[in-house]
Amino acid sequence: MLFELVTPSVQHAFEVVGIFVFAISGALLAVRKNFDVFGMAVLAEATALGGGVFRDLVIGAVPPAAFVDLSYFFTPLVATVLVFFLHPQVERITAAVGVFDAAGLGLFCVEGTVKAHQHGLGLTASVTLGMATAVGGGVLRDVLAHEVPSLLRWDRDLYAVPAIVGSSIAALLLHFDALSGATSALAAVVAFTVRLLAMKYGWRAPRAWNRRSTATEEI
Amino acid sequence: MLFELVTPSVQHAFEVVGIFVFAISGALLAVRKNFDVFGMAVLAEATALGGGVFRDLVIGAVPPAAFVDLSYFFTPLVATVLVFFLHPQVERITAAVGVFDAAGLGLFCVEGTVKAHQHGLGLTASVTLGMATAVGGGVLRDVLAHEVPSLLRWDRDLYAVPAIVGSSIAALLLHFDALSGATSALAAVVAFTVRLLAMKYGWRAPRAWNRRSTATEEI
Amino acid sequence: MLFELVTPSVQHAFEVVGIFVFAISGALLAVRKNFDVFGMAVLAEATALGGGVFRDLVIGAVPPAAFVDLSYFFTPLVATVLVFFLHPQVERITAAVGVFDAAGLGLFCVEGTVKAHQHGLGLTASVTLGMATAVGGGVLRDVLAHEVPSLLRWDRDLYAVPAIVGSSIAALLLHFDALSGATSALAAVVAFTVRLLAMKYGWRAPRAWNRRSTATEEI
Repeated sequence: MLFELVTPSVQHAFEVVGIFVFAISGALLAVRKNFDVFGMAVLAEATALGGGVFRDLVIGAVPPAAFVDLSYFFTPLVATVLVFFLHPQVERITAAVGVFDAAGLGLFCVEGTVKAHQHGLGLTASVTLGMATAVGGGVLRDVLAHEVPSLLRWDRDLYAVPAIVGSSIAALLLHFDALSGATSALAAVVAFTVRLLAMKYGWRAPRAWNRRSTATEEI
Repeated sequence: MLFELVTPSVQHAFEVVGIFVFAISGALLAVRKNFDVFGMAVLAEATALGGGVFRDLVIGAVPPAAFVDLSYFFTPLVATVLVFFLHPQVERITAAVGVFDAAGLGLFCVEGTVKAHQHGLGLTASVTLGMATAVGGGVLRDVLAHEVPSLLRWDRDLYAVPAIVGSSIAALLLHFDALSGATSALAAVVAFTVRLLAMKYGWRAPRAWNRRSTATEEI
Repeated sequence: MLFELVTPSVQHAFEVVGIFVFAISGALLAVRKNFDVFGMAVLAEATALGGGVFRDLVIGAVPPAAFVDLSYFFTPLVATVLVFFLHPQVERITAAVGVFDAAGLGLFCVEGTVKAHQHGLGLTASVTLGMATAVGGGVLRDVLAHEVPSLLRWDRDLYAVPAIVGSSIAALLLHFDALSGATSALAAVVAFTVRLLAMKYGWRAPRAWNRRSTATEEI
């Protein structure tokens, strides 16, 4: 039984940590965009919970966990208060956003895949929803902040691939009935590591074949 | 029983008025953005119904009221026709957008909180969804119109706070079983008034501590 | 019985074709925006499935078809691979986007109207959801690609009107119990033709009365 391998409390702690680090990334972007404290809170909540709310709406788990479990709602507010008083240098902000974002990415892709599968979706759809859980909040963050989503940009390091890797490992673990707290943590760490390596070595995905234009349109 | 205190017809009239004023705000922004009449209608519908549809999806009230009750759907079209023939001066438009928006804000935050609570959500989640009902349409309006959401901007007067005030009063009324047509109208008027005062006196929320940069990034 | 007139397999083939052409339009926009191959895939999936997922969430058909039927998910990936190796000239891209988009528009507005009605929504709401199915993916595409939605722009040829025409014909066919594979294909072709004519002859919708400003704000 999945239930016995990943206990609810382990999964819950997993989720709160992921929510916290994503919220940090949202609040830090709000600071960079010069938004006020409420803008910070909204962007923190949207980044942290957006992917999960989308997943829960899709799998029919309503009301979504974010509206039932108060710890999901208050965690981004704690992150907002922390960032509010953090006085970060712009450079430190940029680096921190990336690392925190990578951690959230790894945590959420695994958690999303598992939850989608628990609700009866197939493995392919679970991988997709795991990826959507992981990247959905960041896309919503960028759309709300009026930026081109990092996820789509050519001149940004690999972002979707780490999530796909983490989700796929989780799906394989589910398929072979090998999911446990340890193996799911491993899947998250692999995704996190792939993302960090992509950032460190500037790994990028190719653009359309023979597309060699250097012009980027008003990005 | 809540049902006896706020009769369906009172709540319905409440909602249609809120939908109308929000739709006006959406259609006016479409005029400012130079959109065509269909763009006006889409923005009017999105502004008026977006927050409520989001709330209904979250609480599992599908199909959302906006797709069941035809008055919800046709009211924004009436607002679109009115705005289409209104020939407003740009200055008059800006002022009108603000006042209509404030009225919708007050009406929707109370209505959203009450409906979320009626569907079994806790008081905190109901306050959140009340706020989301009130501000969600405006955020969707700004995202669709390709603008930075007013809700998030530092250089805009308080917008989230009035909604939080109205939602919280509604939640307190629910908690103390004191909700009636009169008290819920009072909550809406308080939120409306707080928003008008914020506009009149330029009340703003602080940005992150020691954040004194005046540069705003391509907003 | 509707079921006997439009067999599931006919409706399914209908949908896969629509998904493919919409995905082409999304992937081509991603190329124009200089996104990488994952950005192309995300935009292809969002354009192709966004409207249908929205419709399914609204009518309570969860998980949405896009997450159940693998052909819906893999079709946009095929489109992405095709576009990736297509080496298109920029001019050819622009024209192709338009024609493919028009085909998807016609297919989806009919399919969305029929599915919404099958799930018990009224004819007006079904027309609205049919239109939303058809234009929702394109709006999501433009929002994700950080562009002003084509749907709203005054200086773009009629886009909502063809969808409304197709949805309305489908609703009339439903009302008079005359829906069949042939008549629904006809409705789709009419919508497609109206859109092509609008593109060919530059049909546009009016802006607000006496609005003669030529200034477009930072679009």
